[in-house]
Amino acid sequence: MENQNSSFQYWMPVRILFTEAEPDIREEIAGESIVIVTDPFLYESGVAGRTGDRLGNADVSYFSKVEPNPSTDTVNACAAMIREHEAKTVIGIGGGSSMDTAKAAACLASSGGVIGDYAGKGKSFGKRTVRLILIPTTAGTGSEVTNVGVYTDSETGEKRPVVCPEFYADLAVIHPKYTYTMPRSVTANTGMDAFCHAIEAYWNLNSQPISDSFAVQAMKLILDNLLTAYRLPEDGAARENLCTASLLAGLAFGQTRTTGAHVLSYPLTARYHVPHGTGCAVTLPAFIRISVEKAGKKMQTLAEALGYIDVEALADGVCDLMRSLEMPVALREIGTKAEELSGIAKDAMNYYPQLSLTPAFMTEETVFDLLKSVY
Amino acid sequence: MENQNSSFQYWMPVRILFTEAEPDIREEIAGESIVIVTDPFLYESGVAGRTGDRLGNADVSYFSKVEPNPSTDTVNACAAMIREHEAKTVIGIGGGSSMDTAKAAACLASSGGVIGDYAGKGKSFGKRTVRLILIPTTAGTGSEVTNVGVYTDSETGEKRPVVCPEFYADLAVIHPKYTYTMPRSVTANTGMDAFCHAIEAYWNLNSQPISDSFAVQAMKLILDNLLTAYRLPEDGAARENLCTASLLAGLAFGQTRTTGAHVLSYPLTARYHVPHGTGCAVTLPAFIRISVEKAGKKMQTLAEALGYIDVEALADGVCDLMRSLEMPVALREIGTKAEELSGIAKDAMNYYPQLSLTPAFMTEETVFDLLKSVY
Repeated sequence: MENQNSSFQYWMPVRILFTEAEPDIREEIAGESIVIVTDPFLYESGVAGRTGDRLGNADVSYFSKVEPNPSTDTVNACAAMIREHEAKTVIGIGGGSSMDTAKAAACLASSGGVIGDYAGKGKSFGKRTVRLILIPTTAGTGSEVTNVGVYTDSETGEKRPVVCPEFYADLAVIHPKYTYTMPRSVTANTGMDAFCHAIEAYWNLNSQPISDSFAVQAMKLILDNLLTAYRLPEDGAARENLCTASLLAGLAFGQTRTTGAHVLSYPLTARYHVPHGTGCAVTLPAFIRISVEKAGKKMQTLAEALGYIDVEALADGVCDLMRSLEMPVALREIGTKAEELSGIAKDAMNYYPQLSLTPAFMTEETVFDLLKSVY
Repeated sequence: MENQNSSFQYWMPVRILFTEAEPDIREEIAGESIVIVTDPFLYESGVAGRTGDRLGNADVSYFSKVEPNPSTDTVNACAAMIREHEAKTVIGIGGGSSMDTAKAAACLASSGGVIGDYAGKGKSFGKRTVRLILIPTTAGTGSEVTNVGVYTDSETGEKRPVVCPEFYADLAVIHPKYTYTMPRSVTANTGMDAFCHAIEAYWNLNSQPISDSFAVQAMKLILDNLLTAYRLPEDGAARENLCTASLLAGLAFGQTRTTGAHVLSYPLTARYHVPHGTGCAVTLPAFIRISVEKAGKKMQTLAEALGYIDVEALADGVCDLMRSLEMPVALREIGTKAEELSGIAKDAMNYYPQLSLTPAFMTEETVFDLLKSVY
């Protein structure tokens, strides 16, 4: 593996508990006021409630209105509830949306204000005084171990990633059994999201040896297990390996950030309302092909480590996997029209600092060409 | 890679700064009283002083009496100096001995008492209030990112490992250039120590996917770079890769602890005054061979990942590497007599909890047989 940077930093203070048994976090909490942040499905199906019921004497309230791609309004409403209940602990349980909402709401309840003051405005959160525990129920987001959250502006519809050290949770609890009941399409989408996290960390211009170690292992585990989990949702080993992969991928991109594939997911999910994983993965094979521009040797090493002869074969292999997962592999399959490509390329330029971490020459023109190549 | 444990924990809160430029840590320190803990060689050669000189207005004192395999008396003397100077920050600069001394002394200065109250006596350190910064000048110990220190009882001569969350430093600063001037034998010994950390983390009965990712990458880097650094001490890429490997190996065994090879190093270094790396590595090929008893499949995967056909070939390869590094590969080469083997096996049993993490059947008899096989 190449070492792209001779100087780097690493910090990831989250305590991780990966547990085969149903998690017991009573020791973390001292009979205090707690807000559990989740989505309507996990609330109604009782998964979030089971966590609450296991908290002993704590005074538990539920914020169960998290939607996919959580809005700034949702985050602000959640923060208001935490303040109202004077909660000492916030538990985010669900996919990336619930965990991202919990992160920002816990920080807002500590620092005051609304998320709009921070997302895109450059204001920094002060020290978080509300304890934050994150429990993923999908295997993809990695949000439980990252310092990143993504919020959709309720007014403009734009997606705004926020990176903040206070977003690192105190505790991440991963229980693979929570992922058994994901619908098949969610297994596919979240698995490919994790793969994007890993490969975008690996080829990232911010990459470094620690994140590389995580990323390579995450990719191996996803290629070896995703299709099995998709076809056999209760295959325990596959689910456990995908949870591990998602965790490792989160540890990787938490250090590096993501790149072009994630950037393009912002306009694609906003315009065509596709799941986040689809929004990222649909351009992934194209990004793999151009990654050789600035990371040729490193990508060849990766292709071989993953069992492919070269980078083109890896791109083809990822494309084949997506087809097997019944995911779209062309923009027209998600409803994009040819005349919209230039607008999407233009949108991507709004995220230039993140886009520029891609190991290829990124201009509005080259992004347009890339979009055309997967149209 | 196999996943031996379906449940695991991970926590490693140290901030890491890996820097090609001479480190500047003035931002970490606010013109306060600082004690720099180091060994006589680094003090007299000016390396420790250069760090002190770069600290701006801070009031810097030096504790420069750290010896190899630091004694409990040394740790207590260092803690007394920290208290006397009312230091707010302790900087350990050097090999494992200096860093281990700094860890325990910083905790003692915070919690009171002497190291004998904690090492082997089960008393726990309270919260460390003295800031701890660790700067390795060798590429082997990994101590900068672990929660472990090893101290030699000044009365009995026994080595006592102490594991303690307060031993995690606030900051680890790795600057590969500091390792260029290591004597060749130190390069060899510290490199093999790091290899032991990595393989003992990998085959450890406590192993888990995060530590496995670190360990495999560390072993690859050591096999690819150690001989180069030994032969060409100023080969920048080899030195940088060995520093990375040592760091990754430290991250790995910090989660798992070490196993039999490290356990045997305690009596071997005490009895024959060999360097720590030699004490660990001399039995390593033998431990590799028996690791198949309980980790056969996982070790075969490792052997292949490292470019060997099977585990026996890996053991032979490690043995060949040690010969090329002019390190002893048999106990008689370090002065052991045949009639002493049973005493060494008996000594090892004093560390049974750690010994039992080895993936093989460990009794006084099997340890004796193993020692005989490398006599």
